[in-house]
Amino acid sequence: MKYLKIFAPATVANVSCGFDSLGLAIDNLGDQMSFEKSDEKGIRIKKITGASLPTDINKNAAGVVANAMLQQVSPNFGIDIEIHKGYKPGSGLGSSAASAAGAAFGVNQLLGNPFSLLELTQFAMLGEEATCGSPIADNVSAALYGGFVLVRNYDPLDIVKIPVPIELRLVCIHPEVTVKTKDARDVLPKEIPLKNAVKQWANVGGLISGLYSNDYELIGNSLVDIIVEPVRKHLIPHFDLVKSTAIKAGALGAGISGSGPSIFALCKGDANMNKVYDAVKNAYKTTSINFSIITSEVNTQGIKILEQY
Amino acid sequence: MKYLKIFAPATVANVSCGFDSLGLAIDNLGDQMSFEKSDEKGIRIKKITGASLPTDINKNAAGVVANAMLQQVSPNFGIDIEIHKGYKPGSGLGSSAASAAGAAFGVNQLLGNPFSLLELTQFAMLGEEATCGSPIADNVSAALYGGFVLVRNYDPLDIVKIPVPIELRLVCIHPEVTVKTKDARDVLPKEIPLKNAVKQWANVGGLISGLYSNDYELIGNSLVDIIVEPVRKHLIPHFDLVKSTAIKAGALGAGISGSGPSIFALCKGDANMNKVYDAVKNAYKTTSINFSIITSEVNTQGIKILEQY
Repeated sequence: MKYLKIFAPATVANVSCGFDSLGLAIDNLGDQMSFEKSDEKGIRIKKITGASLPTDINKNAAGVVANAMLQQVSPNFGIDIEIHKGYKPGSGLGSSAASAAGAAFGVNQLLGNPFSLLELTQFAMLGEEATCGSPIADNVSAALYGGFVLVRNYDPLDIVKIPVPIELRLVCIHPEVTVKTKDARDVLPKEIPLKNAVKQWANVGGLISGLYSNDYELIGNSLVDIIVEPVRKHLIPHFDLVKSTAIKAGALGAGISGSGPSIFALCKGDANMNKVYDAVKNAYKTTSINFSIITSEVNTQGIKILEQY
Repeated sequence: MKYLKIFAPATVANVSCGFDSLGLAIDNLGDQMSFEKSDEKGIRIKKITGASLPTDINKNAAGVVANAMLQQVSPNFGIDIEIHKGYKPGSGLGSSAASAAGAAFGVNQLLGNPFSLLELTQFAMLGEEATCGSPIADNVSAALYGGFVLVRNYDPLDIVKIPVPIELRLVCIHPEVTVKTKDARDVLPKEIPLKNAVKQWANVGGLISGLYSNDYELIGNSLVDIIVEPVRKHLIPHFDLVKSTAIKAGALGAGISGSGPSIFALCKGDANMNKVYDAVKNAYKTTSINFSIITSEVNTQGIKILEQY
């Protein structure tokens, strides 16, 4: 293989109750990336469209990941990368993770697939560390594995892929405001009441159980976050409006995507998804904030190959 | 039906990571209880063997539960109850819960089954409240539903039955010391670090996932409790010895049963269960503490009818 073009999905981290542990991949939103072998060794980012990001490989998530992989394998060729961002960084939908995961997947393909999915996740985490300050795994593992993932443990890294009920759909609204990751982290409590933690992990158990047993009602009932959402939602304009509108329109539940400002709602079936989409869109139009909104299936495949030769 | 004899199982609450949320039922340990219709209205506890417990229906878990049910239905008969305790109260194996759940089940049968399993759980919780001070649901729901249960929510009560991998076995050792529930509660922290809570709920997610997917390695890896076990284990003589011996002998994991002093180990298959049983038994013999130890399948049925006419 000399050339590869892929789709790297946007991702929702946390998924209400699963702060820093759960993620899911979106099917209708993500980056396109191409990888081409070059006689010139090393990694080059030749072009980035759709967002203003550094092409310096030491400052770009994809560059950091690709470079780390090449340094480990030392092939007799180099790789030129192009990145076409399909959505904006800072949305809370794993923008750096899509590029990092996409780079890990694409470079691995051109290298002849020496690395496992778990190893690719570890490489992709280097991209998160370089751009977000910490090597978080929930977005990158969701992008690489597809579907729902549980980051059960970091040391050693253990990623569990959770099945996705066939009618599960999502609506995602991105209010065009900036939520700095640092601000979103700063509002987090260092300590929480044990009784709240118990409620939260009971809901994590319920959500995982609902996903395995196709129990949409249980999924909806478990989409509760009593720890992070209450302190973070003030950073997101009209969060309560979106959540209550989505639920009133029949969504299973709704919450903050990652550290925001995007808000996701999970739905059962296309009809309900479209109803929730219309309701949330119409409600948000009454505010003064620009936004984009999408509907999607859950991406169960992860990164997709679009073209290769 | 005039007469009913049942088996009400002992139960393991918490199951390491799932403090106050998870429970499982034991197949080889529990109470036998009989229920007989009487022309004399009201509830009477005619006999208790195997433990010294009050027969006053307002002070006995089974009595409290049975009385509450009769008051709601007002049948034209009364019920005489006999309780044969198969194991000691204060073991951390849900002794009051077995009697409370057994009473709820037995009385419901004689009444013609007017109540759902969820309603029986709510009645049984009254027995827990009367004897333990709080209406906890993990032991009683495990006894009533069988298998693994998740208490996802209390208000409204939501019990989720989790599937049990077919080769899952357990070993349970009961060091004959007294751990007062109050002492076991007093050592609990009121607040915990958020980062520890995240690790704990990731393991809850892993354990539930492992149970659904028959992934014994994942079950074992998820049997981790970094919040309660570290502060409670000092109340249990030779806890570390039992845990390390069980794991060295191949157990998937081990932890405190409920608030102790019993310690459970989960195993894959009969051969490993027997190996763990021998190893733990021999290790504990070197201590000065009396103990009993059992092996068992997980009870997937809950309460069993032994005799009826």
